[in-house]
Amino acid sequence: MRCDVVAVGTELLLGQITDTNSQWIGEQFAAVGIDSLLQVKVGDNHGRIVAVLTSVLADADAVIVCGGLGPTHDDLTREAIAAVMGVELHRDEQVAEVIMEMFASRGRRMPDNNLRQAQVPVGATPIAQTRGTAPGLICPVKIAGVEKVIYAVPGVPHEMKEMVERAVLPDLLARSGEASVILSRTLRTWGESESGLNERLDPIIDRLEALGNPTLAFLASGWEGLKIRLTAKAATAQDANTLLTTWENEVRGLVADTVFGVDDDTMESVVLQLLRDRGMSLGLAESVTGGLVAGRITSVPGASEVFRGSIVSYASEVKFDLLGVPPGPVVSEATAAAMARGARQVLGCDVVLALTGVAGPDEQDGMPVGTLCVGIAIRDEVHTRSLRLPGQRDQMRQMSVITSLDLLRRTLLAS
Amino acid sequence: MRCDVVAVGTELLLGQITDTNSQWIGEQFAAVGIDSLLQVKVGDNHGRIVAVLTSVLADADAVIVCGGLGPTHDDLTREAIAAVMGVELHRDEQVAEVIMEMFASRGRRMPDNNLRQAQVPVGATPIAQTRGTAPGLICPVKIAGVEKVIYAVPGVPHEMKEMVERAVLPDLLARSGEASVILSRTLRTWGESESGLNERLDPIIDRLEALGNPTLAFLASGWEGLKIRLTAKAATAQDANTLLTTWENEVRGLVADTVFGVDDDTMESVVLQLLRDRGMSLGLAESVTGGLVAGRITSVPGASEVFRGSIVSYASEVKFDLLGVPPGPVVSEATAAAMARGARQVLGCDVVLALTGVAGPDEQDGMPVGTLCVGIAIRDEVHTRSLRLPGQRDQMRQMSVITSLDLLRRTLLAS
Repeated sequence: MRCDVVAVGTELLLGQITDTNSQWIGEQFAAVGIDSLLQVKVGDNHGRIVAVLTSVLADADAVIVCGGLGPTHDDLTREAIAAVMGVELHRDEQVAEVIMEMFASRGRRMPDNNLRQAQVPVGATPIAQTRGTAPGLICPVKIAGVEKVIYAVPGVPHEMKEMVERAVLPDLLARSGEASVILSRTLRTWGESESGLNERLDPIIDRLEALGNPTLAFLASGWEGLKIRLTAKAATAQDANTLLTTWENEVRGLVADTVFGVDDDTMESVVLQLLRDRGMSLGLAESVTGGLVAGRITSVPGASEVFRGSIVSYASEVKFDLLGVPPGPVVSEATAAAMARGARQVLGCDVVLALTGVAGPDEQDGMPVGTLCVGIAIRDEVHTRSLRLPGQRDQMRQMSVITSLDLLRRTLLAS
Repeated sequence: MRCDVVAVGTELLLGQITDTNSQWIGEQFAAVGIDSLLQVKVGDNHGRIVAVLTSVLADADAVIVCGGLGPTHDDLTREAIAAVMGVELHRDEQVAEVIMEMFASRGRRMPDNNLRQAQVPVGATPIAQTRGTAPGLICPVKIAGVEKVIYAVPGVPHEMKEMVERAVLPDLLARSGEASVILSRTLRTWGESESGLNERLDPIIDRLEALGNPTLAFLASGWEGLKIRLTAKAATAQDANTLLTTWENEVRGLVADTVFGVDDDTMESVVLQLLRDRGMSLGLAESVTGGLVAGRITSVPGASEVFRGSIVSYASEVKFDLLGVPPGPVVSEATAAAMARGARQVLGCDVVLALTGVAGPDEQDGMPVGTLCVGIAIRDEVHTRSLRLPGQRDQMRQMSVITSLDLLRRTLLAS
């Protein structure tokens, strides 16, 4: 099964926004074995949308069109699809009713052209809209005697994603005679490069490639860590979950030491949960990261149950005067330990993670750019660690955040 | 002049990476009046690359191909272009020499297939490589009797951008008989919505649209603010700069109150510079933003000359015990003022920006999500301000950062 992607919108061609929709769709398709061999951006121009759809459908079994379903005269996807199908548009009364109710329930007057969104090519099936006013469309079309299909979905990413998962993927898989339940599970890892994980998982990857189901993919996510995503197809959700659990265990068998969480877990949510479980409060003392660790911890709703605060001691005097660090060079394990002890006193908490280091552009006190010294105080016990991280200023600081949180996680698990 | 874009790489179709190249190229083209009406992603497949190039060149005057210029057997752009041109590949000895020298100078053995990168379609002109090993190509091609051109550039964004600016844009403009110097100037703004700026600049936009040069574009950049970019074409750099200065003054005449910087200025770099000019040191007291303001201030190299540190007083007790805030509800202008005064004492600095507010998901002490109270201490003088910001947790926190830094900037300018 081959389903290409057409993203509609002049603003995409002008570079005013990035087309991330076709990337996301390509990723979903790859996970379930659907080929997507051409992905095209085209402007809000009737003739060109028709030409692109016609040309793509000469080779592909299906095409998914993102965008151009809004209420204005610039939104031409419905008309273009009708032209490719060789049919008229007619008003779908059910769709019209939903749109009118949506405006009524918000107490807003409905501009007349919103009913353009209820215009549907004859023979097409609307995909009910749950998030916006624009319904999607499933449009069967015969090209040179072969039955093919055009899907239309909104260009707003969260509306598009919900509709693709709910209606388009199941329809595509049904047409290709495939099982209809698709589930993914993502293992969140830190501490090993993508090529390193790849090498360690080689035996599993070979077996999965022979089987074809589930699939395994690596997704690099910067300072969110590296994700290992398993995607399974099965007749039922239970079967898909069984398959995922079997292979999750196989993967963990080879790289358990790198896995810090699953699916929506983040390094910061996992650390906060470990502390919550232990009834411990958290404080920070940041120098090199200058508040980034605190910013990330407080991005988790409910962080306030565990997190008390951070002393961002950027100037050396703040380290000496407020945290009681002994005067001297400040990029050392001894300083990290003293910062952790000092912040525990000042903030009145059980656990402190302290960071000092050199982000550059210049070295400091003879220590090279990339040096990170971490101090972890768990009650009266203090652990320290030094590392050399890669990258320029921004990358070094971001790597310091996840690396030090991972050290705290490991220390909590071991204590 | 119409130049379409083809991005080559199976990893793009699989969604492993986002194609940001074609967006960037579209933006550059729009600024100088070149149309880009189709942008296509295609995999590493010789037949499909040839088919896409042929199809695009049926309508466009030119096409720029990104990617597929590497040394491996997967890199097929050179061969595909030669097929479209109907010519053979031959080795360009100058290009080969540069590649061999590059390896020799790094003391590394050159794998044989790197010389694949010196293979050039007969009749094509290489674009010298300055950042990687892959040269670009300018390939004249006759389609149905009309002279057209294919450009090939690397897929690595920074190599691509450098080559497009240095070689492709000037060549395209020369072919269209246009002036060859293009310069941009960006005014950085905060405090007005995109539609608001648009409305205020309407008279200028109309005049510029009639003139066609320079062009004006709005670029939304989240918590970096809104950019107004002017792009001028002229025969010389001096003429282009004169044109930019004339229109920069026109734009400032209508929206001066929103402009905080130019080009590479950021809100944080501007604030740090204002403080440096006044010989003042900066401290922070953050609650709702939990370290994000400090993280952003310290992203600027050299911030340590001005910035002393931040007290991230997330728990109320830290506000009371460390900053001396009077006990009571903590989302108020009085608390923001007390935090600013307290942090000035604790951190020993001239100026403090303090933030307290409600990021959600739940309201706090009867104050709704989105409430932000800012306190600014400049020596013994304290200013406060309350605002209601839009958005969910993340957006509210990010808006708080730039909004409060802008308040500090305005207060410094007025004091």
